Amino acid sequence: MTPEENFAKLGLTLPPAPIAKGVYKPLLIDGKHCYVSGHGPYLPDGTNITGKVGVDLHAEEAKHAAQQVGLAILATLREGLGSLNKVKKVIKTLGMVNAVPDYENHPYVINGCSELFAKVWGHDKGIGVRSAVGMGSLPSNIAVEIEVLFELE
Amino acid sequence: MTPEENFAKLGLTLPPAPIAKGVYKPLLIDGKHCYVSGHGPYLPDGTNITGKVGVDLHAEEAKHAAQQVGLAILATLREGLGSLNKVKKVIKTLGMVNAVPDYENHPYVINGCSELFAKVWGHDKGIGVRSAVGMGSLPSNIAVEIEVLFELE
Amino acid sequence: MTPEENFAKLGLTLPPAPIAKGVYKPLLIDGKHCYVSGHGPYLPDGTNITGKVGVDLHAEEAKHAAQQVGLAILATLREGLGSLNKVKKVIKTLGMVNAVPDYENHPYVINGCSELFAKVWGHDKGIGVRSAVGMGSLPSNIAVEIEVLFELE
Repeated sequence: MTPEENFAKLGLTLPPAPIAKGVYKPLLIDGKHCYVSGHGPYLPDGTNITGKVGVDLHAEEAKHAAQQVGLAILATLREGLGSLNKVKKVIKTLGMVNAVPDYENHPYVINGCSELFAKVWGHDKGIGVRSAVGMGSLPSNIAVEIEVLFELE
Repeated sequence: MTPEENFAKLGLTLPPAPIAKGVYKPLLIDGKHCYVSGHGPYLPDGTNITGKVGVDLHAEEAKHAAQQVGLAILATLREGLGSLNKVKKVIKTLGMVNAVPDYENHPYVINGCSELFAKVWGHDKGIGVRSAVGMGSLPSNIAVEIEVLFELE
Repeated sequence: MTPEENFAKLGLTLPPAPIAKGVYKPLLIDGKHCYVSGHGPYLPDGTNITGKVGVDLHAEEAKHAAQQVGLAILATLREGLGSLNKVKKVIKTLGMVNAVPDYENHPYVINGCSELFAKVWGHDKGIGVRSAVGMGSLPSNIAVEIEVLFELE
């Protein structure tokens, strides 16, 4: 099964690839590496899932937001590379949760993105290293922001 | 136009290259890559621009602080590499804003650094991937901290 | 002296390599690079050092916690690579302190880890680039989290 076939099986809908809202590129290819900018939980209607995790969103809602970030990243990959099949594996993820100061369940939240990638690229190649941490604030009060380093085929 | 010529045209003044205040190197060369440590908004007089963005600094002041971080990074590059011309392009920027919990304009702030790099290395090579996020706190209460990965010529 | 010999001289005890508590790998080898996931201050008894730096932990306690993070990373390296001697040098460290909003001494805290690495790999190869910053929150309220990029022999 290819990553595109794996994704199709999930029955999930990709949002459009988000437009950069600052002076940056959504992704950058550096040899066999593909760096992806921090993405938010971008929805098909062009809005983002917002709010502080731990007060505005509970853990399940925040995990769902992280999955939506993963979908936005897939949209950027497909737009920038032509196909998810161009990606060989996940190297590194930085998962940033817009959480209240006493929040403790960041790994559970970021699993929403990591489990999606594991389904698309498989349990070995779809899982890389990761930090899942709590930010003081995020742009436009988005609930989760994630940046990823992939290896290309 | 070379990066050094582009920079000269801007009429901006570089601070001295900041001295490391901990157990780290200001930059490290790894093959064709140059990693730069987190830099603050270091001024020619040896102080930093400090304060919480959203209460002590408004958006324009914070964007100016981010430009000053960019200048400090240029100073480190010139000291470590001899010339800005040794840098081929910007790969990745992590822009960290010392903001209040409800702050939302991090991308606007970090553009202060990214726009500077775009002027020095041009609109393609000077713009890479980026995350612009809000930290709970930063060393010595500096307003902005930025780390960058460059590719060398 | 090899890194393993340098470490033995310190008389410090490694915790067991921490088990991943999410969908990630503790380390990932990518050619000559070894990426290590964010680690906490994991103790031999399987607990972590927790609390907000600046209120629950003072600077010395937090620096000690950062050293414990460094020991947990060494445990992961030894488990994943077989020996600390497989690592040639430290390239990049992201040191994340779970601090109160007005905390200012992040570099001092993260030196607890960086000084350990400098003793193991020596003053040149054991010191790389670094950002030492304050997070709004961290998983399970751990006091410090650190991720590292190493170069392999």
